[in-house]
Amino acid sequence: MPRYRLTLEYDGGPFVGWQRQAEGASVQASLEAAIEKLSGERVTVTGAGRTDAGVHALGQVAHFDLEKSFAPGKVRDALNFHLRPDPIAVLEAAEATGDFHARSSATSRHYLFRILNRRSPPALDRGRVWHVSPALDAEAMDAAARHLVGRHDFTTFRAAECQSQSPVKTLDRLTVSRRADEIHIEASARSFLHHQIRSFAGTLKLVGEGKWTPRDVKTALEARDRTACGPVSPPDGLYLTRVDY
Amino acid sequence: MPRYRLTLEYDGGPFVGWQRQAEGASVQASLEAAIEKLSGERVTVTGAGRTDAGVHALGQVAHFDLEKSFAPGKVRDALNFHLRPDPIAVLEAAEATGDFHARSSATSRHYLFRILNRRSPPALDRGRVWHVSPALDAEAMDAAARHLVGRHDFTTFRAAECQSQSPVKTLDRLTVSRRADEIHIEASARSFLHHQIRSFAGTLKLVGEGKWTPRDVKTALEARDRTACGPVSPPDGLYLTRVDY
Repeated sequence: MPRYRLTLEYDGGPFVGWQRQAEGASVQASLEAAIEKLSGERVTVTGAGRTDAGVHALGQVAHFDLEKSFAPGKVRDALNFHLRPDPIAVLEAAEATGDFHARSSATSRHYLFRILNRRSPPALDRGRVWHVSPALDAEAMDAAARHLVGRHDFTTFRAAECQSQSPVKTLDRLTVSRRADEIHIEASARSFLHHQIRSFAGTLKLVGEGKWTPRDVKTALEARDRTACGPVSPPDGLYLTRVDY
Repeated sequence: MPRYRLTLEYDGGPFVGWQRQAEGASVQASLEAAIEKLSGERVTVTGAGRTDAGVHALGQVAHFDLEKSFAPGKVRDALNFHLRPDPIAVLEAAEATGDFHARSSATSRHYLFRILNRRSPPALDRGRVWHVSPALDAEAMDAAARHLVGRHDFTTFRAAECQSQSPVKTLDRLTVSRRADEIHIEASARSFLHHQIRSFAGTLKLVGEGKWTPRDVKTALEARDRTACGPVSPPDGLYLTRVDY
């Protein structure tokens, strides 16, 4: 019973998110339908990260099992063919060992959050960036981000619906840098809490606008209180870029 | 009677092109409708480049005249407000002198053509790149491009519908470079013939695939014969990036 590992790119805009739901198109259900068209088998696909509605992926990883065996290149090309109506592309398909698990074997997840920081709204990147008009101070945002790196109780930056057993996580990287009229927030950790990066982005924006000091972010973290968080950002600018195993 | 100069970004996908036509949405008509909403005046907007259907802009330039006077910042913000349903953004609005003409005053036009060169189709950049699966040799394409730079009769690379008085143009720049899984073709000239860059892209792709040598491109140029051209590329990967005056 071969196990396959997929690397995926998708536009999260038209989906209710990664996860199959009672209503609405999901990335998971689209993939499962494409796999059934290839193999005739109904399978469950497991993803490394359950991206929210509107969140994109440049390198999501997923796995599934089949009864029949197919060459990995055939899996990639056939799934891309059957996925054609959906903005999902299989970048890579590979056979994996039976103990590989896209979610629990992951050692690190990497995200990018793009803010378009200019007066005019995006024309080409609609739904792909968070548009913020006032000029943001990326250096102050980066200084604030440094307070969040490390092992902390992230209750402040955790959505009420979060299913994680503990709010204590180790954030390996959180950096803010300017690239022309964009601000890029890059985050890496073994795992994240629900809405954690969007909570960071919304809070760091307050620092960028000068409404909060970097120190205020440290105070908010230490409060371990959801109400101390800045407004959660929209999903549009968020990309799951890579998963390490 | 003030003249305004606009710098524009747009997604060419939903439009029949820059130019107003009997049927279909055009960038020009959308702008003229937005200007009428702002000013109550019906004007004609002149663009630096008449981009085809599906061709995008990062820095198109246009001008128009109004009876009434508005602060340039107000023009930019009001047009962006009225343009909201369309993927068009006014990046900059400025007052221009009466002798400024977006088309005829331009001294140089700069285009980028993006080829996504990988096996899997684009998910996030659908309609924004030309997807070419076979691995392309960017160095051979660049060597071929060098034969096209300079003052030449470009009849080979000119669409039948071209309205230019002469097929003789000076191409100031044509370079090909690889950026990860993309091939970028960058072209600069005072002006281009109709479909000239898409004719270059389609022809250079043949070189990248090894079907033509760089020398074959020189031969095709010297033939001054439209039938010597490679297939014209789709518009999707083409961007008008900047216009100089």
